[in-house]
Amino acid sequence: MEKWRISRHIVKRSSTSLFKSLLSTNFEKSINTSGSTYKSGRNCNPYVEHYFQCQKRHFQTCCHPLRDYTGNLHASKATNLEHICRIQYKSFGSVATQIQRNPSFSTLNSDDVDHFKKILGEKNVIQDEDRLLTANVDWMGKYKGSSKLLLQPRSTEEVSQILKYCNTRCLAVVPQGGNTGLVGGSVPVFDEVIINVGSMNHIISFDEVSGILVCEAGCILENLDSFLVNHGFMMPLDLGAKGSCQIGGNVSTNAGGLHFVRYGSLHGNVLGLEAVLANGTVLDMLGTLRKDNTGYDLKQLFIGSEGSLGIATKVSILTSPKPSSKNLAFLACKDYLSCQKLLQEAKRKLGEILSAFEFLDSQSMELVLTHLEGVRNPLPPSIYEFYVLIETRGTDESYDKEKLEAFLLRSMEGGLIADGVVAQDINQASSFWRIREGLSEALVKAGAVYKYDLSLPIEKMYSIVEEMRLRLGQSEKVLGYGHLGDGNLHLNISRPNYDDSVLAKIEPFVYEWTSKHRGSISAEHGLGLMKANEIHYSKSPQTVQVMASIKKLLDPNGILNPYKVLPHNILYPEA
Amino acid sequence: MEKWRISRHIVKRSSTSLFKSLLSTNFEKSINTSGSTYKSGRNCNPYVEHYFQCQKRHFQTCCHPLRDYTGNLHASKATNLEHICRIQYKSFGSVATQIQRNPSFSTLNSDDVDHFKKILGEKNVIQDEDRLLTANVDWMGKYKGSSKLLLQPRSTEEVSQILKYCNTRCLAVVPQGGNTGLVGGSVPVFDEVIINVGSMNHIISFDEVSGILVCEAGCILENLDSFLVNHGFMMPLDLGAKGSCQIGGNVSTNAGGLHFVRYGSLHGNVLGLEAVLANGTVLDMLGTLRKDNTGYDLKQLFIGSEGSLGIATKVSILTSPKPSSKNLAFLACKDYLSCQKLLQEAKRKLGEILSAFEFLDSQSMELVLTHLEGVRNPLPPSIYEFYVLIETRGTDESYDKEKLEAFLLRSMEGGLIADGVVAQDINQASSFWRIREGLSEALVKAGAVYKYDLSLPIEKMYSIVEEMRLRLGQSEKVLGYGHLGDGNLHLNISRPNYDDSVLAKIEPFVYEWTSKHRGSISAEHGLGLMKANEIHYSKSPQTVQVMASIKKLLDPNGILNPYKVLPHNILYPEA
Repeated sequence: MEKWRISRHIVKRSSTSLFKSLLSTNFEKSINTSGSTYKSGRNCNPYVEHYFQCQKRHFQTCCHPLRDYTGNLHASKATNLEHICRIQYKSFGSVATQIQRNPSFSTLNSDDVDHFKKILGEKNVIQDEDRLLTANVDWMGKYKGSSKLLLQPRSTEEVSQILKYCNTRCLAVVPQGGNTGLVGGSVPVFDEVIINVGSMNHIISFDEVSGILVCEAGCILENLDSFLVNHGFMMPLDLGAKGSCQIGGNVSTNAGGLHFVRYGSLHGNVLGLEAVLANGTVLDMLGTLRKDNTGYDLKQLFIGSEGSLGIATKVSILTSPKPSSKNLAFLACKDYLSCQKLLQEAKRKLGEILSAFEFLDSQSMELVLTHLEGVRNPLPPSIYEFYVLIETRGTDESYDKEKLEAFLLRSMEGGLIADGVVAQDINQASSFWRIREGLSEALVKAGAVYKYDLSLPIEKMYSIVEEMRLRLGQSEKVLGYGHLGDGNLHLNISRPNYDDSVLAKIEPFVYEWTSKHRGSISAEHGLGLMKANEIHYSKSPQTVQVMASIKKLLDPNGILNPYKVLPHNILYPEA
Repeated sequence: MEKWRISRHIVKRSSTSLFKSLLSTNFEKSINTSGSTYKSGRNCNPYVEHYFQCQKRHFQTCCHPLRDYTGNLHASKATNLEHICRIQYKSFGSVATQIQRNPSFSTLNSDDVDHFKKILGEKNVIQDEDRLLTANVDWMGKYKGSSKLLLQPRSTEEVSQILKYCNTRCLAVVPQGGNTGLVGGSVPVFDEVIINVGSMNHIISFDEVSGILVCEAGCILENLDSFLVNHGFMMPLDLGAKGSCQIGGNVSTNAGGLHFVRYGSLHGNVLGLEAVLANGTVLDMLGTLRKDNTGYDLKQLFIGSEGSLGIATKVSILTSPKPSSKNLAFLACKDYLSCQKLLQEAKRKLGEILSAFEFLDSQSMELVLTHLEGVRNPLPPSIYEFYVLIETRGTDESYDKEKLEAFLLRSMEGGLIADGVVAQDINQASSFWRIREGLSEALVKAGAVYKYDLSLPIEKMYSIVEEMRLRLGQSEKVLGYGHLGDGNLHLNISRPNYDDSVLAKIEPFVYEWTSKHRGSISAEHGLGLMKANEIHYSKSPQTVQVMASIKKLLDPNGILNPYKVLPHNILYPEA
């Protein structure tokens, strides 16, 4: 260890437990803790401005613009809705996609509202304009629906009654949790009834022996984590949006997060689920067992189905004992191959204590340093091509620290690491994380950005960044960063403004390239509305066809979260 | 540590890496490595004798006994099969279940055989009597079918062609891997065509950075593990049957195993799957990505579906770096609550290095000591109520050992452990494992045994053993042991001979009790033929109905592994 500490100028030992409030200052969290509140005033997201410009163009040509709707329900108006041309403009793809409202869906009338009031009581049937405005728009302000009704069930039975009625009436619905999704999956596209399960937020049980937590779907992730801390446990997932997102939404979108490399997928951690089908049938799959081989594992179908097969109402999840020791290193590597090899060695040598392995390239570092105040590169101003963050979590503070430092020393001697520092306190750790976590904010501040969330074989992961640079030329800034430990790349093209000719060079190339290398065009965000029509880049036609058959089987009228997940030409072949 | 070593007489430090051949001597492996060979001569399993007695009784009354079949196909005989009363007797339940052949299935004829020869070539279309005898019987000799044909495809395309033909002809099939299952899932019930994928045994790719292995379904688990060892990796599952079982079968049965507590379920570790549907459609879900949120995770449906939804042909699986350090402790606890608390502490304190947590009660220990030669209790002859095995695996030999011993010392001081030893070499570790792993053999040697493989909430897990003792009285030996870390109990009632009045006291009580406590009547073995009709004890009617709908959707003619997994009254309502 001595050699490492002598040869590397900033490596220091941490004497206290790090990262207790590690993520508290990052940008994504600060956005998300504002919940689903629709931001008025100047919008910081250039996408949003573009979106509203596009909407404006459409308002001039479309016979029933969004702005015509008021918060109050006018049955006479509403009954005509299904015959009215209703176009939603999607501003973030290569081709603006026009989606038509499915004419087979009924339109809400006052009898419907009365019926819902009987089920839920007056106060849980929301028609208030301001609250609907919030619920109709996603947190980025990218997607906006025109729902006239928000329902707040307090129990599975109420969800069941709502859906049974909607299915009979052919009223489309959109399930909504914390509304923190990134692909337009949690807001209405047109006038779907919003079902928000946020009132179903009770912890049902926690078993300290097995670590199995059972709770209602509306529990906020951070609240669950806070509850568990008192019992010495933690949730197996951690997201920037944890202050707002709900566990039902996490499960429905198969949320990933920062510690995926350590705790794995929700497909492994979710042990049980209660979900309500479109016809109101309650599927009790709420097992609290680590092992259960009695028939098909149906709950898996609902994990990641984005509310299109059923509404999750209760979740049983395997939690992990809270680690008593955390450490973070910020490292520089001379090339991508070194990053890869470092990951390989970290898995082998740090093994069981490795909890995060993130990376960014020098272009990403430059962007952060240029656009975020107070951020500095903890390494000397030499130019390195790649930066890596390695976090460990374990049960023995002094040993874990020693182990990490010994690993870093060996890796440096072996040439995998060009330079590096180990955080010596919470503030230093937070400042390291700020570089990685601040990238979204920096990109927005830099101007326009084309964002892609790709999953690729690790050895191929950075090639798309390099190819994109060749393709776009030196005038465009192409950035690569992400969850290297999970093979999840965030590819970003940053430029002063949007330009369709640039976009045409990016798409469909980026999807085709991803598909060619058996990657996924959505690593952790889902398909939602944004990529429903792009599924074929990651899934075979036969597989998509089986998905559509299952959708048809479980939701024959297609009322659950319509226009999402599956391609519109398969969902609505007659349209 | 000194105190522990002084106060506990047998605790010794291990100076070499333990367990390299840890499981090589256990009984289950020695049975399983004999593969699917049908044992002639004296059968060591009392079930089998009972089975054949029952079959004999049936032969006298049944118009078409099994023995009438020869290895050669006689079309004139065969065409009458579907009209002939064909009864399969199940000797291991409370009520002998009579299953009738589904009359909608066609019977194999010579044209079919000729067609298969065209697809596969002569040598992969097996009609040899001896080879069929082997393939018709499971390795325990409990279940016996009367198939006339074994097909050995060498590629996905061949599997597809076979199934397409069988589906058109309405010929039932049974997919077969290593034929090491425990619930009659991998052998024909009647004359189903056996499709054995054992020839599809090639490793397709291995990525040393991500640890992702892609291989054909017929690869033997132990061979995969041997391949990985050379790359410093290991499979995330380890079974007694690993010398024979195939990865396709492991995935299709969602195999658990010894290290489930550490590496988790195949639902988390299997990253991709290629499967062929009943109609020959090849579903390419063979992703090699840790994250992929593009649509429904269909592969999950096939994991644990026991070949009833499709035949797995290729598997992509996340492997783990091979741990360089292994340790094992054999401990005594005074009561079950101490075992529970010890597990809780082990998860918290050993955390990331805990790799197995097994337990057995004093009755189990007594049985092993009585019936297995050369097995001794490593603890002094005091009577303890419970014994626990704790295994650790990590990347640092000396640290892991220290950590385990410090944990044991604290647990002893805290009163959770009454006594204990740490294995000091491979032989000692093997002798400890022999006690736990030898239980199946000891039970068979002791006479008749009623076996139940239950998953239960850990705090309730041992109550069923105690209640069963009260229910059956002191004259019956009721044993409890199993994978405490996973909440998986092996409940066994051992007696000199079978007695229907005893069985009537056990069943359906054991299933009802399990159901009442939201347990699973099959923790890791699946339902197969044995428990297909008992699924309702662990799954709600609505859930079973959805399963049946999915079965009907993917396999409308029901040709894939008929009579298994789902209840016969749902699969064949007209029967």
